[in-house]
Amino acid sequence: MGDDATTTPELVGRVRDFVREVVIPIEEAHLGVLHRPDLAAHDLAGGRVDDGERALRLALQDAARDAGLLAPHLPIAWGGHGLTHLGRASVFEAAGYSLFGAVALNIAAPDEGNMHLLLEAASAEQRERWLRPLATGDIHSAFAMTEPPPGAGSDPRALTTRAERVDGGWRITGDKWFITGAREAGLVIVLARTSGEPGDAGGATMFLVDGASPGIEIVRDVHTLDAGLYAGHSLVRFDGCLVPDDAVLGEVDHGFEAAQVRLAPARLTHCMRWLGLAGRAHDLALAHVAERRAFGSAIGDLGLAQQHLADNEIDLAASRALIRETARVLDAAEAGTPTGIDAGAPDPGSASSVAKTFVAEAVGRIVDRSVQLSGGQGVSDELLLSRYWREVRPFRIYDGSSETHRWSIAKRAVRQHRKGLRHDLAQ
Amino acid sequence: MGDDATTTPELVGRVRDFVREVVIPIEEAHLGVLHRPDLAAHDLAGGRVDDGERALRLALQDAARDAGLLAPHLPIAWGGHGLTHLGRASVFEAAGYSLFGAVALNIAAPDEGNMHLLLEAASAEQRERWLRPLATGDIHSAFAMTEPPPGAGSDPRALTTRAERVDGGWRITGDKWFITGAREAGLVIVLARTSGEPGDAGGATMFLVDGASPGIEIVRDVHTLDAGLYAGHSLVRFDGCLVPDDAVLGEVDHGFEAAQVRLAPARLTHCMRWLGLAGRAHDLALAHVAERRAFGSAIGDLGLAQQHLADNEIDLAASRALIRETARVLDAAEAGTPTGIDAGAPDPGSASSVAKTFVAEAVGRIVDRSVQLSGGQGVSDELLLSRYWREVRPFRIYDGSSETHRWSIAKRAVRQHRKGLRHDLAQ
Amino acid sequence: MGDDATTTPELVGRVRDFVREVVIPIEEAHLGVLHRPDLAAHDLAGGRVDDGERALRLALQDAARDAGLLAPHLPIAWGGHGLTHLGRASVFEAAGYSLFGAVALNIAAPDEGNMHLLLEAASAEQRERWLRPLATGDIHSAFAMTEPPPGAGSDPRALTTRAERVDGGWRITGDKWFITGAREAGLVIVLARTSGEPGDAGGATMFLVDGASPGIEIVRDVHTLDAGLYAGHSLVRFDGCLVPDDAVLGEVDHGFEAAQVRLAPARLTHCMRWLGLAGRAHDLALAHVAERRAFGSAIGDLGLAQQHLADNEIDLAASRALIRETARVLDAAEAGTPTGIDAGAPDPGSASSVAKTFVAEAVGRIVDRSVQLSGGQGVSDELLLSRYWREVRPFRIYDGSSETHRWSIAKRAVRQHRKGLRHDLAQ
Amino acid sequence: MGDDATTTPELVGRVRDFVREVVIPIEEAHLGVLHRPDLAAHDLAGGRVDDGERALRLALQDAARDAGLLAPHLPIAWGGHGLTHLGRASVFEAAGYSLFGAVALNIAAPDEGNMHLLLEAASAEQRERWLRPLATGDIHSAFAMTEPPPGAGSDPRALTTRAERVDGGWRITGDKWFITGAREAGLVIVLARTSGEPGDAGGATMFLVDGASPGIEIVRDVHTLDAGLYAGHSLVRFDGCLVPDDAVLGEVDHGFEAAQVRLAPARLTHCMRWLGLAGRAHDLALAHVAERRAFGSAIGDLGLAQQHLADNEIDLAASRALIRETARVLDAAEAGTPTGIDAGAPDPGSASSVAKTFVAEAVGRIVDRSVQLSGGQGVSDELLLSRYWREVRPFRIYDGSSETHRWSIAKRAVRQHRKGLRHDLAQ
Repeated sequence: MGDDATTTPELVGRVRDFVREVVIPIEEAHLGVLHRPDLAAHDLAGGRVDDGERALRLALQDAARDAGLLAPHLPIAWGGHGLTHLGRASVFEAAGYSLFGAVALNIAAPDEGNMHLLLEAASAEQRERWLRPLATGDIHSAFAMTEPPPGAGSDPRALTTRAERVDGGWRITGDKWFITGAREAGLVIVLARTSGEPGDAGGATMFLVDGASPGIEIVRDVHTLDAGLYAGHSLVRFDGCLVPDDAVLGEVDHGFEAAQVRLAPARLTHCMRWLGLAGRAHDLALAHVAERRAFGSAIGDLGLAQQHLADNEIDLAASRALIRETARVLDAAEAGTPTGIDAGAPDPGSASSVAKTFVAEAVGRIVDRSVQLSGGQGVSDELLLSRYWREVRPFRIYDGSSETHRWSIAKRAVRQHRKGLRHDLAQ
Repeated sequence: MGDDATTTPELVGRVRDFVREVVIPIEEAHLGVLHRPDLAAHDLAGGRVDDGERALRLALQDAARDAGLLAPHLPIAWGGHGLTHLGRASVFEAAGYSLFGAVALNIAAPDEGNMHLLLEAASAEQRERWLRPLATGDIHSAFAMTEPPPGAGSDPRALTTRAERVDGGWRITGDKWFITGAREAGLVIVLARTSGEPGDAGGATMFLVDGASPGIEIVRDVHTLDAGLYAGHSLVRFDGCLVPDDAVLGEVDHGFEAAQVRLAPARLTHCMRWLGLAGRAHDLALAHVAERRAFGSAIGDLGLAQQHLADNEIDLAASRALIRETARVLDAAEAGTPTGIDAGAPDPGSASSVAKTFVAEAVGRIVDRSVQLSGGQGVSDELLLSRYWREVRPFRIYDGSSETHRWSIAKRAVRQHRKGLRHDLAQ
Repeated sequence: MGDDATTTPELVGRVRDFVREVVIPIEEAHLGVLHRPDLAAHDLAGGRVDDGERALRLALQDAARDAGLLAPHLPIAWGGHGLTHLGRASVFEAAGYSLFGAVALNIAAPDEGNMHLLLEAASAEQRERWLRPLATGDIHSAFAMTEPPPGAGSDPRALTTRAERVDGGWRITGDKWFITGAREAGLVIVLARTSGEPGDAGGATMFLVDGASPGIEIVRDVHTLDAGLYAGHSLVRFDGCLVPDDAVLGEVDHGFEAAQVRLAPARLTHCMRWLGLAGRAHDLALAHVAERRAFGSAIGDLGLAQQHLADNEIDLAASRALIRETARVLDAAEAGTPTGIDAGAPDPGSASSVAKTFVAEAVGRIVDRSVQLSGGQGVSDELLLSRYWREVRPFRIYDGSSETHRWSIAKRAVRQHRKGLRHDLAQ
Repeated sequence: MGDDATTTPELVGRVRDFVREVVIPIEEAHLGVLHRPDLAAHDLAGGRVDDGERALRLALQDAARDAGLLAPHLPIAWGGHGLTHLGRASVFEAAGYSLFGAVALNIAAPDEGNMHLLLEAASAEQRERWLRPLATGDIHSAFAMTEPPPGAGSDPRALTTRAERVDGGWRITGDKWFITGAREAGLVIVLARTSGEPGDAGGATMFLVDGASPGIEIVRDVHTLDAGLYAGHSLVRFDGCLVPDDAVLGEVDHGFEAAQVRLAPARLTHCMRWLGLAGRAHDLALAHVAERRAFGSAIGDLGLAQQHLADNEIDLAASRALIRETARVLDAAEAGTPTGIDAGAPDPGSASSVAKTFVAEAVGRIVDRSVQLSGGQGVSDELLLSRYWREVRPFRIYDGSSETHRWSIAKRAVRQHRKGLRHDLAQ
C-alpha cells in the first residue's frame, strides 16, 4: 500500500535495495548465467508461458507487495505512491536495472500503460472491474492495436478489425499481431473500427474485453529477439467475439483519441525501464573491464575501452535528462499548462516522440558497447549482456519505429516553420 | 537594472524579442549576407579589432542596457536579474540565437565566466574594482591559463608561467596562448606558478592583472576558424609583469582550486550559447527547405531531408535537456546539497564535463546538417550557415577537448566501480 | 574435382546457382521460417551437435561434391579450383549468401583456414594425413589458440598452455576456450608454450593433434549469439595429452610465426563469407520494403527507408572493394612482391587488419539496418534476419576485436611516421 | 610530353617527388603558415583572381611541364601518359597531397573533366581548337550547368537556360551559378535548353563557348568555404550570347547524354584528388601527435587519439579501395564489357555515385579528425588543417549531394529487386 509520507528519493532507494537484494539474485539464477550453461538464457526465449514462469512472476510480485513497492506509480487510493511522471522516471529506471524488475513491481508493459489508460479514460465501474485486479497483480492484460499487413501498424488509420453493432453490444472480427502478454491476459484492450474504412482518420472504438471471452483465439506466437516477459507476443484472432455495451472505453468512434491518452506516457515509461537496463549493462561491462587485463593493463584503463565507457556515460546522462525533461512536459500538461504547436511549447506527444527515438537508439548503443567491452564473454551466455542485447533491439521498432518518429518529427518542424512558430519555439 | 518581479519565462520572451528585433538585423548587415558580397563574412575573420567593431559592440550593449537586459545573470545587487543556473539555460540560449546576442547582453565568454569567478572568489574590494565595470560593460577581460606547448593545455598541471615574490607583489613571466579578448582586456586573469614545478598538482596562483600593465605584450594573434568576437585569440607574453599583492585572487598556491570555481559554470554557459546558435542554424535550414523545391516537392518534404531535420530536432532537445539537468546539479551544489563521487550523486565538475562533450558534438552535427540541407548556398556566404559552421568547430576542442573529457569521464567511472559506488549511482 | 578450365566468373555463377537452388531451400526449412514456428530458429542455437545436424552437413557437402564445388579454393592437385585470394573473394561471398553455404562448400571456418595453414606450413606427410581428409570433408578440425583469462586472448603472448618434452613427443597441458568445432574435430591444431613464460614474444609451438587423443576433454560448451555452425564453441582441456614428435607443425618454438601464416588469409575469408550474408540480409530487406506498404506508399519508396537502403548499398560496395584490394595484397605477397613497413606498401597483416575492422562493422550495420527496415517481422523468427543479426555480432570481437585492431593500426601509423615513411606510403 | 615507357608506379613516384619538392613548399609559403600570420590563409579566400595567383599557377604548371608531368591522364598523342582510370587513381591521389598539386599538373576540376568530355564527345576540329590549349595549360575552362533556383540543380531536368536558333548559330540566355573558374575561362561549356520545357527529360544541348564572347557577364562571385582555386565560383549571366553552329558539342537536343559522358569520370577524379588531401591531413595530424605530449605521453600514444588515427587509416584504405574498384568498372565499360542494371554488373554511373557518396563523407571525417587530433592548432592558421577542413566541406554537396546520390542509389536497388535482378548482382 502507498504511503504519502514517502519521498521519491526514499522510494528510489527502496526500489534499488529491493532490486539488488531480491530481484537480481532470481534473475541471475533464472537466466542461467555464472557458468551454469544448463540454465542457458535461450531456454527462456520464445515467450513460452509455463508454470515455472508464472510461479516466478507471482513470487516476485509477492515480494514487491511485502516491500510496499507494488504498482508504485498509481495514486495512493489505488495502492500506489502517487508518483508524478518525473517521479516515475527515477523509480522505473531503478526497477529496470534488472530484466525482471518491472515485472516484480507490476510496472511492466503493457500492464502499466493499460493501468494509466484506465485511470484516465475509464468509467468508475470499469476501473473497479479492471484496474483493481491489475493494480494488485491478480490479473494481467494485453493491448491489441497492431494488425498484420495491410492493417494498422506504423499507420494506425489502416485499422481493419471491425466491431459491428449487435443487440446489447458489439461483435469484433479481425486479427491482431505482436500482442504482448495475450496468453496470460485477463483483460484485452482492443481497438476496432466501428465506422469508416481503413485509411480513415476516425471511426475507431476502444473495447475492454474479458480475456476469457469466446471468440478470442491465440493463433500462434510470434517469436522475437525479446523474450516478451512473460507470455510473448502472439497473433490473436477475434472471430466474432461478442462484447457487451459497457465494454466500450470512452466514446464510440473516438478510439484513436483514447489511444492517444496512453501513447505518450507509455512511450516514456518504456524509455525509463530500458534506461535502467542499459545502466545495468554498462555496470556489468565496467565490472568486466575493471578486472580483466590485456597488454599489461586493466582493459578499462586502455584508451579504446575508455572511449566506449565514456560514450556510455554520456548516452546514459543524455537519455536520463531527456526523459526527465519530457516527464516534466507530461506533468505540466496534466496540470493544465498550455502546450503544443500553437502554444509555443513542446506537447507531450511530440516531446515523447523525440525522447523515445533518442533513448531507444542510445540504449541500443550502450548495450552494444557493453557487449563489445566484454569481448568473447560479452557474446556468450556467461554474462547477462548477450541476453540484454537481444532484449533491447526491438525497442527501436516497437512503439513507433525510429523512422516513423523521425518522419513525424520532421513534418512537425516544417509545419511549425510554415506557421511562423519557429522562432518562438527556439528556446 | 534588475527587477526582482521578472520571471524567467518573461525574461526569456524579452530576450527573444530583443534578439529578433535589434540584434539579428545588425548581425545580418554586418556579416554581409543577403546578396551583399561586398560585405563578405570573412572580412570579419581573424579577430582584428577596429573601431567599427568596437563601436558595434558598444551600440549593441547600449541597446541591451536600455532594454534592461545587460548582464541578466548577475545578482540584482549587481544590476542583473539574479538568475539561477537553470534560469540562465533559457536566457543564454535565447541570446545565443544570434552570433552577436551574447556580446549584446554582456554574457559572452570570457567576460561572463570571469564575472562568475569574481562573484564567487574575489574580495569585496576586488569585486568593486573589477566586477563593477565588467557588469556594466565598461571594460572587458581575458582569462589567461592556456600556454604554448609544453605548458598548460589539456593538462593544467603542466603550468610553466611563473610568478615570483618581489617586494610588495609578484613578477609574472611566461607565455599564454589562445587568450580570447586579450587585445581589448582591461582585466587579465592570469594563472601562474608560485611554487612547485611543471607537472605538480598544486602551486598555482590566480592573479587579477590590469590589462594596461607594463610587461604584457600581445606577441601575435592566433587566427582560428572562429572569429573570436571581439578581439580574437592572442599569444600574450608576460615579461616580468609586476602586480601588487592585492592582485591575488583567493589564496596563494590555490589557483587550481580557483580555476575550478569557474570551470563547470563556464563550460555550461558555453553550451547554452552555442545551443542557441545551433537552433538558429536549424531554423535557417528549415526556412531554406520549406521554400526550395527539387524533384517536384519542397525539399523539406523529401525523406532524406526529413532525416536531417528530425536528427536536428532530437539533438536540440537532448542538448537542452542535458544542459538543464546539469544546471540543476549546479544549483543544488550552490544550495549545499551533497554531490560527488562519495555522495552518490553527480557533481558539477563531472556533470558539466558530460554535458560539454555531448553538446559540443551535437551542436557541430546540427550546424553541419543545416549546411548540408541548404546545399550550395549552405557553403556560401549567402546564408549565415557557413559562418556558423566555422564558429562552432573549435567548441569541440576549447574548454577541454572531447577526448580529454572522455578520458576523465571513463576514468571516473572505473574509479567509482572500484569504490563500489556504481550501483547506487546507477539511477 | 577441380577443373583448370573454369574461370572465376563461371565458378561464381555456378556457386550462386548452387546456393540458390540447393542450399537456401535447406536453410529455410531448417531454420524454421516462413510461418513455421514449430521449427523456430533458436532451436538450433547453442551449437549442440546432434545426428540431424551432422546428417545435414553431410548432405550439403555431398551435393557440393556432386556439383564440383567442394573446397574450391584448394589447388587443383588437392581437388579444388586453384583460386587466388582475389578469386576467393567472389566465390566465398557467393557461398556466404546462405548461412549454410560455406559449410556446404567446405570453406567454413575453422576448416578453411586450417587447410590454408597446412598447405603453407605442413610437411608432405602431414598434408597427406590431415589435409587430404579435410579437403574431402571426411574430417573436420579445430584451431585451439585462445585461452581463458589470464591466458592468450587479444594478446597471444599471454599463452599459458604448455607442451613439455617427453620421450618420443610432447605432453600438452592447459585450457583452451571458444574453440569452434571442437566436438566434431578429427584434427585439433594447438598452440602451446614450449619455452619461456607467459608474456614472452616467442617460445610457442604449433601441434597437429588427433581429436581422438586421450587427454582431450570438452569441459563445456560456451553458448554464444552465433550458433557456431556446426558444433559450437567449447572449453577444451588438455590434461597431459601426449602427442608424437611428428605432430609439430613447422619448427619448435616458432609457433607464433606459424600462426601468422594463417592469420591474414583467415581474417579475410571471414570477411568474404560475412559479406555474402550481409548481401542476403539486404536483399531480404529489399524484398520486404518493395512489397510492404505504409502511409500510402511502398515502404521502400519512403525517404527514411531509402536512407537505410542506400547506406547498405554503400557499405556493401566499400566492403567488397576493400576485401578485393586486400586480396590483391595477399596475392602479391605470395608472388614475392615486397610489402610491409619498410617496403612502402601495405603488408598482408596490416591490410587485412584494416579490412577486417571495417568489414566486421559494416556487416553489422548492414544486417542491423535490414532488421530495422523489416520492422516487427525483422526482429521475429518469421524472416531470417533476426538470426543473421545474432550470427554476425561476434565478428566484431572474434579474430581480434575492433579495439585491438584499431590499437595496432594506430601504433603502426605512428611508427611509420617516426621512421619517416608516411609520405611514401600516402599513395 | 608523354612517355610510353613510363609505368604507373614510376609515374606515381615522380609525382610524389614533385609534390614534395616543388609544390608543397610553394603551398606552405603561399598559405601563410609556419608562424607567418601576415600571410594568413583567409587572404586567399573568396576566389579573387589577381595577378599573383595567376603567376603562381603559371609557375607551378611550368615546373610540372619541365618534369614531364603536365596533364598526365591524356593520351600520349595529346601529351599525356595515357593513363587508364585505374592509373589515374594513384597519380591523382599523389597530386592531391597538396592543395596546389592538381592545379600544377593541370588535372584540377573543371579543366580535367572538360578535357575528358572533349576527348570523348568532341569533333576533331573542336578538339584541336579547345583540347589542345587546355592540355598545355594555355587556357582554362568552366562547365556551366547549375542554375539558380528554380533552375537546374540536383535535378538537371529543371534546366531553364535557353538557346534559340538564329541565323548561323544560337543565342543563349539564362543564368548559371556556382560556375567554377568562370573568371579565367577561355572556354565555357554550357548546357542550354534547345527544346521542351523545364522539367522535361530531354531537349538540352551542350555548347562550347569562347569565354571572351560578348553577352557573357560575371554578375558576382559566390564566396564559399572552398577558395575555388583559382578564380572561385561565379554567377554567370548569358544575355543573348551568340555562338556559331560549330559550338554544338555532340548533337542538338542530346546535351544530357553528353553531360553523362563527363559525369562518372569527373566524380571519380574528384574523389582521387580529395583522397590525396585527406591523406595529407592525416599525415599532418600524425606529425602533430607523434611529437606533442600530454599527460606524460606523446598524444599519439594515448588511446583516444589512437581511435581517431585508426579510423583515419581505415577510411583512407576503404576510400582508396572503392575508388580503384570503380576505376576498374570505368575501364571495363570503356573496353566494352557489358555493365548496368540489365547486365548484372555495376555500371559506371551507379558505381561512381556510390563511390562519390562514400569518399566525400570519408574525406570529411578524416580531415575533421585530423583537426581534432591537432587541438587548438588544428583550428588555427598555424597548420594547414583548418584550411583543408574548409576546402573539403562542399564536396559532400557539389557533384550531387550525398542526399541526392542516396536517393538514386536506393531507387535503383528497389528497381533491381522488382526486376528480379538482385540475387545475380549479389556478388
